[in-house]
Amino acid sequence: MTLYMEKADQAGALLGELDLDCWLTFVRETGERPDPGIDLVLGSSLTWTSALIFGKDGSRTAIVGRYDVENVRLSGVFPEVIGYDEDISAPLLAALQKLDPQRIGLNYSLDSHTADGLTYGMRQMLDQILADTPYLGRLDSAGELLSRLRARKTPAEQARVSAAIAETEEIVGLVSAQIRPGVSELELADFVHAEFRRRGLPSSWDWGYCPTVNTGPDSPLGHVAPQPHITVQPGHLVHMDLGVIKEEYCSDIQRMWYVLRPGESAPPAEVQRAWETVIAAIDAGAAALRPGVYGWQVDAAARKVIVDAGYPEYRHALGHGLGRACHDGGPLLGPRWARYGSAPDQLVEVGHIYTLELGVPTPAGYLALEEDVVVTAEGCRFLSSYQRELMLI
Amino acid sequence: MTLYMEKADQAGALLGELDLDCWLTFVRETGERPDPGIDLVLGSSLTWTSALIFGKDGSRTAIVGRYDVENVRLSGVFPEVIGYDEDISAPLLAALQKLDPQRIGLNYSLDSHTADGLTYGMRQMLDQILADTPYLGRLDSAGELLSRLRARKTPAEQARVSAAIAETEEIVGLVSAQIRPGVSELELADFVHAEFRRRGLPSSWDWGYCPTVNTGPDSPLGHVAPQPHITVQPGHLVHMDLGVIKEEYCSDIQRMWYVLRPGESAPPAEVQRAWETVIAAIDAGAAALRPGVYGWQVDAAARKVIVDAGYPEYRHALGHGLGRACHDGGPLLGPRWARYGSAPDQLVEVGHIYTLELGVPTPAGYLALEEDVVVTAEGCRFLSSYQRELMLI
Repeated sequence: MTLYMEKADQAGALLGELDLDCWLTFVRETGERPDPGIDLVLGSSLTWTSALIFGKDGSRTAIVGRYDVENVRLSGVFPEVIGYDEDISAPLLAALQKLDPQRIGLNYSLDSHTADGLTYGMRQMLDQILADTPYLGRLDSAGELLSRLRARKTPAEQARVSAAIAETEEIVGLVSAQIRPGVSELELADFVHAEFRRRGLPSSWDWGYCPTVNTGPDSPLGHVAPQPHITVQPGHLVHMDLGVIKEEYCSDIQRMWYVLRPGESAPPAEVQRAWETVIAAIDAGAAALRPGVYGWQVDAAARKVIVDAGYPEYRHALGHGLGRACHDGGPLLGPRWARYGSAPDQLVEVGHIYTLELGVPTPAGYLALEEDVVVTAEGCRFLSSYQRELMLI
Repeated sequence: MTLYMEKADQAGALLGELDLDCWLTFVRETGERPDPGIDLVLGSSLTWTSALIFGKDGSRTAIVGRYDVENVRLSGVFPEVIGYDEDISAPLLAALQKLDPQRIGLNYSLDSHTADGLTYGMRQMLDQILADTPYLGRLDSAGELLSRLRARKTPAEQARVSAAIAETEEIVGLVSAQIRPGVSELELADFVHAEFRRRGLPSSWDWGYCPTVNTGPDSPLGHVAPQPHITVQPGHLVHMDLGVIKEEYCSDIQRMWYVLRPGESAPPAEVQRAWETVIAAIDAGAAALRPGVYGWQVDAAARKVIVDAGYPEYRHALGHGLGRACHDGGPLLGPRWARYGSAPDQLVEVGHIYTLELGVPTPAGYLALEEDVVVTAEGCRFLSSYQRELMLI
C-alpha cells in the first residue's frame, strides 16, 4: 500500500471521528498553489479547478480537468475519477447531490497553515457554484481533520523522517572536520550545500539559510544567510541549524561545536553552564511530552528550566510538528501567544513527530540545540542522536 | 537593480494606475504556502504571520516575525522593516493608521491562481484583527494589480525566460539522436531527466510528466507519466512537451518527430496535412496577437483554422502566460469557457509572454506544437525557435 493510500484511509476514518459527512478539497493549479491537505493523499498536481471528495460512506471521488484524469486514476486513491472540459459546476453538484452531506469540511484554518489550503478566491468560486443549493449553508472547516491527518504519522511516514535525519547527521559528521579558525560561515554553508547536492537532497527550508550557520557572538540570529565576513575564531561557539527533504519528508536539527582557545581543554565555565541548562531544558520538555498533554504544557516545562537558570526566554516555540513540511502544522509545543492561535492548546497524540529546540545567549555566541522526537504510548522516543556533549574543535 | 526591486517599482506604479491606496499581502509560512504575488517582489520566505504593505505614497513596510527581519532588510525592497514577537495585530494596525488607505487591495482573485494567494483562514484572521476599525470595510481585491504585475515582464524577466528556452532547445537537440524504433517513452523521459539533472534545472511542472512523451496512436494524452511499455515504432509521431526552470523562470515548448517507415522519405500525406494545419493555426494565432486585443480573440483565430480544416477542436486554451510560473496567470489566450472565468476577456499588453500551443489527432499519433512568444508594440516575437518542419528519424 502506498503512503498516499495509507493517508487516504486515515482521512476516511477521521470523517467518522469528527462527525463530518464529507471532506471537500477545492483547488486549481496545485503545482503553483500547493494545498498541504491534498498533498497528503495525492502525489501529483492538479491543473484546472478540481474537487476531491471523501465521503463518510467511504467513497472517494475526484473531479478534475480532462488532462489530469489519467494521472489521478493511476494514483489508485480515487475509485471514481470524473473528467470535464469546460465547467466543473455540474459534475461537482451532481457528486454532492449523490452524497447529500449535512456537514462539508473545507481546507481552511486560522490556526494551522498546513490545514489552510483553500484560497479566498476559490472560496468565492465555490460559494457561487453552490448558491441556491442547500450545500452552501453546510460548509464548515476541515481544519481539525487536516491537523490530525497530518500530525498522526503512519509507520511509513516515521521511517521517512528518520531516513532524512540519518542523512543530516551523516553530513554533520563531515562538517566537524571543516571547522577551524579562519573558515567563514559561508564556507561552512557551501560545504553543506555541496553535500546536499551530491546526495540529491533539497534543503528543508530556504536554500539561502539552510543551513543557518552562526559562529561567535557577532553573528546575526534568525533566518539569515551565512555571512562571508564572519569567520570561526578560537573561543567561538559554532551553531548550525539544518535539515533535508528525503522522499518528501523533512529533518530539522541544530548542532553545536566549541572551538578551544590555545591552552583550553574544555569550554569556559559559562559556556558549559549554558550547555547544561539547554540539555536540562530539552530533557524537561521530553519528559513532559506524552499523549494527552497540551502543547503549551511541554513548552512550559522546558521554558521554566531556562528562566529558573536566569537566562532570557527563547522567543519561539519549544517544538513544531515535523513531517512532509519542516513546519508541519498541527499542535505546537509553544507558549500561548496570540500569534500561535490555538495551536498550543491542542493535544499531543501517539505518532506525532516534534522538534525540541531552544537556545540561550553566551559571550562565546548563541548556544542552541534541536532534536527530533516521536510520541509513543509511554512518552517520546528520540529519532535524532541526542547531542549530549559539545563537539570540541 | 535586482529583479525584485524592478517588480516592486512596477507594483508601486500600478497602485496609481488602478486607484488602490495600498497593496496588502498577508501571509504565513510561505515556504509551505507560497504566495505567488509576494514571490514577485521578495526572494525569501516568511515564517510567522507577516504583512507587506505597499502604499500609493511610495512607502513600503514589512511587518514580520523577529527571525525574518534581517533577511527582509537585506532584500533592500522594504525601507521599513518592523519585527514582532508575540502578535502582529498592533504593528499592523499602526501601519494602516499611518497610511489611512481608503481602498486596500488583498491577494485574491477568482480568475487567476497566481493572483490568489490569500487563504481563507488568513482572510478570517485579518477580519478579526481589523474588526472595529474602518479598514475592514475598505478591503478589496488586488487581483488586477497582481495580474498586471505578473504579466508585464520586465526586460530582465524576458531575458530569463529566453535563457530557460535556450536550455530546453539544447536538450531537444540531443533528444533527436535518442529516438529510434524500440526505445520506450520512459527511456526518452529518463534521458531528458538526466540532462535536467546534469544542468541543475528543475522541470517546469511535475517531474513525473515533464517531459510528457507520446509515441504513436496508443499513447494516453494529458498529464500522464511516460510509459515503459509504449515504444517508438516506424510510422510513429513522437511528441514531447517539456520545460525547465532557470533562475526561477520557466520555458514550455512542444516538439515533434516522425519516424519514417522502411521505404518512406517523407511523412504520409495525412500527417503532413495535420502538420501544415497546426503550423497555419499557430501562424494565425501569432498574427492576431498584439497589444489591445482580448485573449479570446487570439484563441479564436487559431481555433478557426483547426475547425475549418475539419479537425476536432483542441480542448484547452491556445496559450497561457509564461514566466515565474509555467502557467503564469494573467490574461489567457483561451475560449470563453466557464472554467476560465474572465481570463480570456483580459487585454493583451506589451511585454506579456505567452505560449502558443495546439494539436490534432492523426493515425500516426497526436501531432502538436508549442512555441513561446513575447508581445511587442507591433505584434509578437518568437522567443523559441519556431519548429517549421517535422524532424524526421
